[in-house]
Amino acid sequence: MMMDEDVEQASLLSFNDRPRAFPNMRSKTYSPLIFRILRRLNARVLSIILLICFGVIFFMGASTSPIILFVFTVCIISFLLSLYLTKWVLAKDEGPPEMVQISDAIRDGAEGFFRTQYSTISKMAILLAFVILCIYLFRSLTPQQEAAGLGRAMSAYITVAAFLLGALCSGIAGYVGMWVSVRANVRVSSAARRSAREALQIAVRAGGFSALVVVGMAVIGIAILYSTFYVLLGVDDSPGSMSVNDLPLLLVGYGFGASFVALFAQLGGGIYTKGADVGADLVGKVEQGIPEDDPRNPAVIADLVGDNVGDCAARGADLFESIAAEIISAMILGGTMAKKCKIEDPSGFILFPLVVHSFDLVISSIGILSIKGTRNASVKSPVEDPMAVLQKGYSLTIILAVLTFGASTRWLLYTEQAPSAWFSFALCGLVGIITAYAFVWISKYYTDYKHEPVRTLALASSTGHGTNIIAGVSLGLESTALPVLVISVAIISAYWLGNTSGLVDENGIPTGGLFGTAVATMGMLSTAAYVLTMDMFGPIADNAGGIVEMSQQPESVREITDLLDAVGNTTKATTKGFAIGSAALASFLLFSAYMDEVSAFASVSFKEVDIAIPEVFVGGLLGSMLIFLFSAWACAAVGRTAQEVVNEVRRQFIERPGIMEYKEKPDYSRCVAIVASAALREMIKPGALAIASPIVVGLVFRILGYYTGQPLLGAKVVASMLMFATVCGILMALFLNTAGGAWDNAKKYIETGALGGKGSEAHKAAVTGDTVGDPFKDTAGPSIHVLIKMLATITLVMAPVFL
Amino acid sequence: MMMDEDVEQASLLSFNDRPRAFPNMRSKTYSPLIFRILRRLNARVLSIILLICFGVIFFMGASTSPIILFVFTVCIISFLLSLYLTKWVLAKDEGPPEMVQISDAIRDGAEGFFRTQYSTISKMAILLAFVILCIYLFRSLTPQQEAAGLGRAMSAYITVAAFLLGALCSGIAGYVGMWVSVRANVRVSSAARRSAREALQIAVRAGGFSALVVVGMAVIGIAILYSTFYVLLGVDDSPGSMSVNDLPLLLVGYGFGASFVALFAQLGGGIYTKGADVGADLVGKVEQGIPEDDPRNPAVIADLVGDNVGDCAARGADLFESIAAEIISAMILGGTMAKKCKIEDPSGFILFPLVVHSFDLVISSIGILSIKGTRNASVKSPVEDPMAVLQKGYSLTIILAVLTFGASTRWLLYTEQAPSAWFSFALCGLVGIITAYAFVWISKYYTDYKHEPVRTLALASSTGHGTNIIAGVSLGLESTALPVLVISVAIISAYWLGNTSGLVDENGIPTGGLFGTAVATMGMLSTAAYVLTMDMFGPIADNAGGIVEMSQQPESVREITDLLDAVGNTTKATTKGFAIGSAALASFLLFSAYMDEVSAFASVSFKEVDIAIPEVFVGGLLGSMLIFLFSAWACAAVGRTAQEVVNEVRRQFIERPGIMEYKEKPDYSRCVAIVASAALREMIKPGALAIASPIVVGLVFRILGYYTGQPLLGAKVVASMLMFATVCGILMALFLNTAGGAWDNAKKYIETGALGGKGSEAHKAAVTGDTVGDPFKDTAGPSIHVLIKMLATITLVMAPVFL
Repeated sequence: MMMDEDVEQASLLSFNDRPRAFPNMRSKTYSPLIFRILRRLNARVLSIILLICFGVIFFMGASTSPIILFVFTVCIISFLLSLYLTKWVLAKDEGPPEMVQISDAIRDGAEGFFRTQYSTISKMAILLAFVILCIYLFRSLTPQQEAAGLGRAMSAYITVAAFLLGALCSGIAGYVGMWVSVRANVRVSSAARRSAREALQIAVRAGGFSALVVVGMAVIGIAILYSTFYVLLGVDDSPGSMSVNDLPLLLVGYGFGASFVALFAQLGGGIYTKGADVGADLVGKVEQGIPEDDPRNPAVIADLVGDNVGDCAARGADLFESIAAEIISAMILGGTMAKKCKIEDPSGFILFPLVVHSFDLVISSIGILSIKGTRNASVKSPVEDPMAVLQKGYSLTIILAVLTFGASTRWLLYTEQAPSAWFSFALCGLVGIITAYAFVWISKYYTDYKHEPVRTLALASSTGHGTNIIAGVSLGLESTALPVLVISVAIISAYWLGNTSGLVDENGIPTGGLFGTAVATMGMLSTAAYVLTMDMFGPIADNAGGIVEMSQQPESVREITDLLDAVGNTTKATTKGFAIGSAALASFLLFSAYMDEVSAFASVSFKEVDIAIPEVFVGGLLGSMLIFLFSAWACAAVGRTAQEVVNEVRRQFIERPGIMEYKEKPDYSRCVAIVASAALREMIKPGALAIASPIVVGLVFRILGYYTGQPLLGAKVVASMLMFATVCGILMALFLNTAGGAWDNAKKYIETGALGGKGSEAHKAAVTGDTVGDPFKDTAGPSIHVLIKMLATITLVMAPVFL
Repeated sequence: MMMDEDVEQASLLSFNDRPRAFPNMRSKTYSPLIFRILRRLNARVLSIILLICFGVIFFMGASTSPIILFVFTVCIISFLLSLYLTKWVLAKDEGPPEMVQISDAIRDGAEGFFRTQYSTISKMAILLAFVILCIYLFRSLTPQQEAAGLGRAMSAYITVAAFLLGALCSGIAGYVGMWVSVRANVRVSSAARRSAREALQIAVRAGGFSALVVVGMAVIGIAILYSTFYVLLGVDDSPGSMSVNDLPLLLVGYGFGASFVALFAQLGGGIYTKGADVGADLVGKVEQGIPEDDPRNPAVIADLVGDNVGDCAARGADLFESIAAEIISAMILGGTMAKKCKIEDPSGFILFPLVVHSFDLVISSIGILSIKGTRNASVKSPVEDPMAVLQKGYSLTIILAVLTFGASTRWLLYTEQAPSAWFSFALCGLVGIITAYAFVWISKYYTDYKHEPVRTLALASSTGHGTNIIAGVSLGLESTALPVLVISVAIISAYWLGNTSGLVDENGIPTGGLFGTAVATMGMLSTAAYVLTMDMFGPIADNAGGIVEMSQQPESVREITDLLDAVGNTTKATTKGFAIGSAALASFLLFSAYMDEVSAFASVSFKEVDIAIPEVFVGGLLGSMLIFLFSAWACAAVGRTAQEVVNEVRRQFIERPGIMEYKEKPDYSRCVAIVASAALREMIKPGALAIASPIVVGLVFRILGYYTGQPLLGAKVVASMLMFATVCGILMALFLNTAGGAWDNAKKYIETGALGGKGSEAHKAAVTGDTVGDPFKDTAGPSIHVLIKMLATITLVMAPVFL
């Protein structure tokens, strides 16, 4: 004990020697192995390798379908554009040394956590890959696969390779998100000293970079896998070979790999960011009464690191897997429908989602580039609302989306069997786009303090902590109603539009319904890259504000970053609405894909999930319970981490009384280390629960079904578990996200001076609400988004086990 | 304004004249019309009328079945016993005048609220009866009913009469619960001055009185209806007449009437009690730092009134409808199964639930009477744990339940077609009893501060309000896992036991599965009267404690009532576990009954609820959403009411600064009036939502199904809505109840001196948690119990509308 204190004393002294400078906490810069290898290569060698890669990719694309060629081209162009955006952002100045020091500390913390987190995740992924390999080596094949001469070993290797590729790409997506945000934050703070508009533009372009990479990688990854399998398995129309309709089923591993990594990335990052945030707020704001991001708070660097690993890296991985899972499911459904309707060239139906997202890359780039660095001279208002700027870009993107979506449906979904089908599907896409708009509007209504709900919540704070929490919980619970109504209308109308499209199977029964919901989901996601840009904008602005606050810049600079931060809060909240909306609309799609997959493997029609069977009902009960338990563990993890932070910060304040007078330096790195190790430890339990429970339930009921003579029982119970978990997850995520956002903004509303303003009793109560809302909206809520899709992809991959 | 203040000044003066006396707030005693009429009658006339009634009842019973005669006899004996218990309780002294004054104020408040609340409810019930009448006059009949010559008008009158009788009986059950509790509370306080054991005995016997009345009335009501219909419709075995198997379908109105009243009783009572409690705590405990039930708090009488209208009246109505709904559903399933298996005398299977509850009355009476007024001399411990005394009585009741349950199955469920079936069903009953035990144990584990979870929660309070709430929410969410696992095992094993019982239909397919789950539910409820006694004990003890505190009795008396109050908290929590467990187990039973009913009306087999159909899935989404929205509105109502109380109490403290020094009297009646009018206003919105949404959803999808050519769509969507709402409701209720209970006990744990004890920062955070938990555990949670069953009964009654 004494020894420890001595060491600390020594480090204190060295801190005190340069009282206003920051500790040099930089370790050597970290970049993943693959980057390091690439960097060591000679530039000429590198370009030759790249050219060869492109050549192979394009050759495979050309052998597969001209559509794939189009997709490749668009993706590569958007990668080039994203390179331009990075160069542009990195060329901006990093500002004065005190900013750079803080930014370096944040970067080191974020990269350090990323390294340990992803090394843990990759170990688990390799273990799981081995399990999948074993399962697939001993499972049966679908009759089509057998007919095509696809051996067990081949199918196992294909699935495992797809899984690992998905996991790797997801990891890269996360890394890219974090990589740019830890570099852009300081550039935004520096630019804020000059002009609000320039700061905004840097944040948008940095966000745009990672959005383009994330979406582009999801699309190109699937396209490469698809064309590889196409060439490798020699798919053609001859009767002995594999049908192109069955090809998408081989891609499920990719989706599972992506969602597996995203789940742990979101859990670890979410626990990290909110553990640090809650801990910092509880001691700093509530106990000591110092403002947010005050340099005297020992947990402040951990909090700022959290924005990067929690919001940027995790959201990158999250959106990556959303897009990947939805593309793959839509491809499976497209293939099944094309087969049923005996459409001659099914590739249009199968590859439609890839094209939609290629257009997404194009139109979102236009939207991102439309945000200029200088103000429109015709606007006379002295203060410019950054939200209006972002909205303008979004509106442009949406208009372009409607046009390109219509064009894609006409191009790919036109078939002579049903000449007007493409138009019905274009309307489905419109349903999706409108749904996206409605979700964004609803989440804004419930979380923005311009509207009634948050004002009522703020009013409830004036009667104490208790009424604030009760009002926030009820607001969150209530906010689930409108989205559910919207999604219900969307599902039914998209299904109906698809069903009346004129596509019929050989018996004349309409079969386009499910594909209709798939197209609606694609419509909803047709502006994903722009939405992701707006989302990434949030944590970058937040971080920039933190750097400005910590480096004690003048008030005018803080005002600019505060304004950007407030907008970032709104965009974050609306993106969550968008994400859960797409998850909800996709849900139906995902379990339809699962049922198709089970049908294919079991060679038995699997068309219904009858919850009047007790076991199937029990599956539903267990699925809903999974959501509750998962949320519980996610929230509890944040609470426990925050408690550790609180104790550490209290200890530092007691042991170093000079901190509050700026006479002593707080030990930031200690807090960073505590939060990082806690987050890594705490992410395992909920993550393992999510992975293990569908497998265990499927196996148990498979065995039970075997002994009670009920065929397919395992698969049915898992289907019901998946559906109930999805429904319950949608509601729970809506509740958690909205309640959290509303608490946050009720506090902000009071801070504008309402109900007594900062320091009043109402404000204290509102801060409690904000603290409670943190794990709701940034840990449990977003993790449930990932969980829902992860459940869908794990059941897709594990389907053979349940039969 | 000036005028008002003058008047208030005057009333203040008159208060000040007698500073330690209580305002005489008594209005004239209220008793419902039916009681007043009865009271005016000559005693001899009354006994003659009673005798004639008994004669008619017994005559009808004798014409129906000897089993019904047995049920009548047991019910009437238990009514006589309950009369003895009341006499015994009322014979106890009411203590000194200051106690009587407080008790009178409580009684007036409670009776006043009851009167207005039930007059609102009865108006709504009459309106709804008219709606049901119209629906039934225009609906189609089942083929059996038509064959039996049961006209539309007849069937409409029968349903409406059953509905109104159910509503009336439920109202009486609620009134009885409140009637005895407002009289017993002061007697318990008075007895606490003499001996803890005597106080305990009075509270138990008062609770026992209402428990016997509630259960007895549910059983005899159904038995009377059943035998009336039997005699009226001339049921016999001849082919042209109505079959006895179809008779239980006519009883559904009774269950709906009961659950309709229970829903509003629970909502109104729950909002009343927690609005007052939260409001009183926020200003009293948190702002002013005065203890609970302190006479200086103007909201304290409203809080005490709340215990009676919220816990006693509402819980009485709740348990009444639980038992009624479950008896009726089990009778329907018993009838259907007997028909399928072509059992010659089906009356045993149909009347089994009535017999189980008759035995319940007998064994619970033994359990209640086993609690003696004097201590067991052999126990040497100086302090006696009242929980141990109650547990001993419960253990005795459970043992008797196992024996009588076995005997009833042998008596009624023995059939020559499957000679060992009765034993399988006895095992189902055992499954139910074990499930009840497991639920009670689990809820104790999560809410008792002797165990890990509450201790962790208390520890989280030491780092602030925020971590306390996060930890409580996660504890509540986590606590759903074990009960769901237990219920899953129970449903599957009871179904399996029933299916292997040897009962087969004409094609040799096992058909006993559903009846097995019904028997398990009956097993779970086979000690309902004793459990209800323990539950009623809680609010009576709580009230007694309040009276002791307000009348400023010596410390030793308070210690005794505090002890009883603490036990009451535990029994209340465990009863909630029991109630939700029975709702969960019954859920499967209730919607099976609904599907049977739809099959009967539509003359189409309705065997499956396939959630792979988009509309059916959307129904599930809407059902789950209903639970979230209902909980939101229930919690928000409490929050709003509490805010009104807080503002009123703050106003009184400011305007009458003498209150804190005992120099001025607070205006208790103003708070009572505010809470009462708020509760009446606030109960309408969630109640109307619960009633309207299944009807609206059923109608909308019926019309949609008509236009899209999907038969039975409305009925299927409603079934899925019902199932998802049930699953979601079970989880939500478990979450709300457990989180609330745990917060309450974490606070109590800190008050024992842990983590700094009373007045510490940890205690303040724990009080916030307790406040948040109040509407969770006593308003929203119990209302969801009722909601689940109300949804089942409303769909049963409204089934013809959805076809």
